[in-house]
Amino acid sequence: MNTQSLQDSFFKLRSNRAFELFVVAVIIFSALVIGAKTYDIPPQVLTLIAWLDTGITLFFLVEISIRFLGEPNKKDFFKNPWNLFDSLIVIVSLIPIEDSEMALIGRLIRIFRVLRMVSIIPELRMLLNSLIKALPQLGYVILLMFIIFYIYAAIGASFFASINENLWGDISIAMLTLFRVMTFEDWTDVMYETMAVYPFSWIFYLTFIFLTTFAFLNMVIGIVVNVMESEHAQEEKERAIAEGELTLEDLSQQINELKQMLKDKNG
Amino acid sequence: MNTQSLQDSFFKLRSNRAFELFVVAVIIFSALVIGAKTYDIPPQVLTLIAWLDTGITLFFLVEISIRFLGEPNKKDFFKNPWNLFDSLIVIVSLIPIEDSEMALIGRLIRIFRVLRMVSIIPELRMLLNSLIKALPQLGYVILLMFIIFYIYAAIGASFFASINENLWGDISIAMLTLFRVMTFEDWTDVMYETMAVYPFSWIFYLTFIFLTTFAFLNMVIGIVVNVMESEHAQEEKERAIAEGELTLEDLSQQINELKQMLKDKNG
Amino acid sequence: MNTQSLQDSFFKLRSNRAFELFVVAVIIFSALVIGAKTYDIPPQVLTLIAWLDTGITLFFLVEISIRFLGEPNKKDFFKNPWNLFDSLIVIVSLIPIEDSEMALIGRLIRIFRVLRMVSIIPELRMLLNSLIKALPQLGYVILLMFIIFYIYAAIGASFFASINENLWGDISIAMLTLFRVMTFEDWTDVMYETMAVYPFSWIFYLTFIFLTTFAFLNMVIGIVVNVMESEHAQEEKERAIAEGELTLEDLSQQINELKQMLKDKNG
Amino acid sequence: MNTQSLQDSFFKLRSNRAFELFVVAVIIFSALVIGAKTYDIPPQVLTLIAWLDTGITLFFLVEISIRFLGEPNKKDFFKNPWNLFDSLIVIVSLIPIEDSEMALIGRLIRIFRVLRMVSIIPELRMLLNSLIKALPQLGYVILLMFIIFYIYAAIGASFFASINENLWGDISIAMLTLFRVMTFEDWTDVMYETMAVYPFSWIFYLTFIFLTTFAFLNMVIGIVVNVMESEHAQEEKERAIAEGELTLEDLSQQINELKQMLKDKNG
Repeated sequence: MNTQSLQDSFFKLRSNRAFELFVVAVIIFSALVIGAKTYDIPPQVLTLIAWLDTGITLFFLVEISIRFLGEPNKKDFFKNPWNLFDSLIVIVSLIPIEDSEMALIGRLIRIFRVLRMVSIIPELRMLLNSLIKALPQLGYVILLMFIIFYIYAAIGASFFASINENLWGDISIAMLTLFRVMTFEDWTDVMYETMAVYPFSWIFYLTFIFLTTFAFLNMVIGIVVNVMESEHAQEEKERAIAEGELTLEDLSQQINELKQMLKDKNG
Repeated sequence: MNTQSLQDSFFKLRSNRAFELFVVAVIIFSALVIGAKTYDIPPQVLTLIAWLDTGITLFFLVEISIRFLGEPNKKDFFKNPWNLFDSLIVIVSLIPIEDSEMALIGRLIRIFRVLRMVSIIPELRMLLNSLIKALPQLGYVILLMFIIFYIYAAIGASFFASINENLWGDISIAMLTLFRVMTFEDWTDVMYETMAVYPFSWIFYLTFIFLTTFAFLNMVIGIVVNVMESEHAQEEKERAIAEGELTLEDLSQQINELKQMLKDKNG
Repeated sequence: MNTQSLQDSFFKLRSNRAFELFVVAVIIFSALVIGAKTYDIPPQVLTLIAWLDTGITLFFLVEISIRFLGEPNKKDFFKNPWNLFDSLIVIVSLIPIEDSEMALIGRLIRIFRVLRMVSIIPELRMLLNSLIKALPQLGYVILLMFIIFYIYAAIGASFFASINENLWGDISIAMLTLFRVMTFEDWTDVMYETMAVYPFSWIFYLTFIFLTTFAFLNMVIGIVVNVMESEHAQEEKERAIAEGELTLEDLSQQINELKQMLKDKNG
Repeated sequence: MNTQSLQDSFFKLRSNRAFELFVVAVIIFSALVIGAKTYDIPPQVLTLIAWLDTGITLFFLVEISIRFLGEPNKKDFFKNPWNLFDSLIVIVSLIPIEDSEMALIGRLIRIFRVLRMVSIIPELRMLLNSLIKALPQLGYVILLMFIIFYIYAAIGASFFASINENLWGDISIAMLTLFRVMTFEDWTDVMYETMAVYPFSWIFYLTFIFLTTFAFLNMVIGIVVNVMESEHAQEEKERAIAEGELTLEDLSQQINELKQMLKDKNG
């Protein structure tokens, strides 16, 4: 069997529906194994799980190799970020880890295998892509929100640090506290504490809540309008195609031709 | 009186507006009886309620029989899931329950009778149907959200289980805790506890909140856009009908006919 | 001066812009007086406030009389619900109250005077009307939500009453507790308490949260779509008027006339 | 070098992309310095920071001078509110502050320098302008919300002041408490406390929550509809231009001309 036919058969295999379903099944199984490990389990089951883990790692290694070998153009394989992600997960989980510190990272890598679900199912990949694509449009609103957070955190850390070191100790802790206030999580406790020293500090919290709520709303509305517009544009395009791309201008052109015909006859 | 005429009269009865209103009234009454039972009531009233309960059960049995007997085609009766639901509720509540364990289930069945309100009132049935119909469109967003939850729960159960067994003991408890974090319910208490051991664990919570909020927003926007689109399509269709289904293409056709007429005359 | 000219001058007065602004100013002033009374104030200021209160009551009496007497058709006056509301507030605040029990109600009546702001400013009146008009469209969603609440409250009161009497004592208390759960207010405290007895009671809370959130979302989306549609219809109507109510059908008619003319000539 | 050429070179400088980026870099650096000051830092670093601070102040002074001198028409400079804001920040930070009381205000001024980010980056300026522009459209909803808050606060302060002085002491504290209730922050604690005295006070809280949620929703929907409409109008305008401003009326006109031509020939 020569290399070309091997590549062809691998290419067929990786496009095979049954193969895909089997890979999804293994990913789900590996997710269940990860979940099972978080329960108190007898040592012999742990040993079984360790064997299963190795088996899954090997299966993923074989699968990614098939994908790579089945790729007609090897360079294209690494142009797809999902392939890079898959390869990284598989390679890192191959490294034998003895150290207890590193063991946690090994565990983390095994958990991230569940994300392969997204890289395998096209609909999830598209969904995530569209989510990521929506982010840059929101760039300036996020920047504005960060500036609001930074200014309020600087004020908070300057004035309230002496009141509660744990909430306003430095600017990063203050930003975390402000995020808490933004989610309305026991924000009055934070406020009442500072109001005992600065009675007018409610202005600080209320303006912050109004500003961030308003900016957040603006962000949400921005997404809604963007999504609707692109849907609308899509629809208009489809309708135009369905109508044979006819516009009022085309009709006007036809009528003008009629006029010309009448003129020619009369002339 | 023969079977056919009996069926006809039952069919008429079940389509009767007054009969329907009476059934609704009995359902509301049964709901009130259920509510009354939750209060501290003297034993003689309890006995009265037990009698009323039996009365309602018998009434529902008669009513469902009328519906069944009034159905021209008996098979169609069981094709309607609401009829199946109604029959099930009535049959199960007929089973005499002595056991105290089962008594709770009997109570539950009686409570579910209130849901017959939905099966009786067409507008509620339509509303619930439209809610259920909206779910599959959201399938992949829900799957993505579940994957996010599962990965974060696996990480949480792996790293934080030793900190608080009640919140991060195993992956299912961890998912419940993450749902709590998603609803912003005392999430900072959960975070501060783990930050005492892993100072950078705020990254875990903040990324989780951002991801789920973003995915949730996406879901909501998805529903809004879907609903609007179907409303819009409906509107367009109505307008097309109102305009006699005339399109620009039809007009173009007419103008072309004119041209042909002129040509024919000239030719 | 005869009655007719008196009525005319009253009618002019009540339509007068300066008079309206003055009434608004008195309402704002009465609101400030109400606010001032909630502070600890020296007795002599209290006396002053009591005098001001009487003054405001008398002014409102005079104002409502002018409105009534200025009305050309006396019956129309009582057809407007806002006039009825205004008259009621003024008449009730005239009743001298000595009893301490009743004094609280008297205070309440004075507070409701602030609502006269809404009855005076047309924009606020319109806004409130549009809010009230939006409610019936939501009728069935609200009914569905109430049924969900009732069923869950019945289940909660049946199973959890023995765990915490204060939260699940009877069906009305249970509904209040469920509303609390719906607002995510310390809902996990409620859940953890019942999970200690029924470990699977998280299903109760999670399904409740999903159902109510979903129904609430549906309600919001319903309002958005309704508002948008009516705005859209308004817009379409305006455009149609701007375009001289021309439709594709009109054009088709014109082209057909042309054809007829050609035929007539040829015939 | 004469004054005119100096102004020209300053004008060129301030429009220079590299100069703008440098100013942005200095603002970011000044933000980092402000953040650094909130950490526990050794005295020698503090001295360094003080020097940096003076340096930044001087740089901003030079920069604002260049902007002012580069302005062809000096009056226009002060017509731009952002220029006024920038100048104010720079001038106030020049005042030497010795007093410890005033030192806090000096610190605040330095923090507000971060806002210069908004005045420098055109996209952020536009975003903030559009946010501010959206506010007046919401004027009446905000007024209605304020009236609701005021009435409920007056009722709360009248009835509940004796129950908890800290929450319902006077009308302003009561409004803060109501804002807390609106954000669902431990609102049941507030409610349970008053329900112990007035068992029906849950009506107060529930009606308040319904009214404010409904008004808030209305506000959000108002913004969404406004934004969508302006986007839609923009789109329509663009389409009209793309179609050469042709309307059905224009077509009708053309057909009428055709008819006239036929008539003329026949006549």
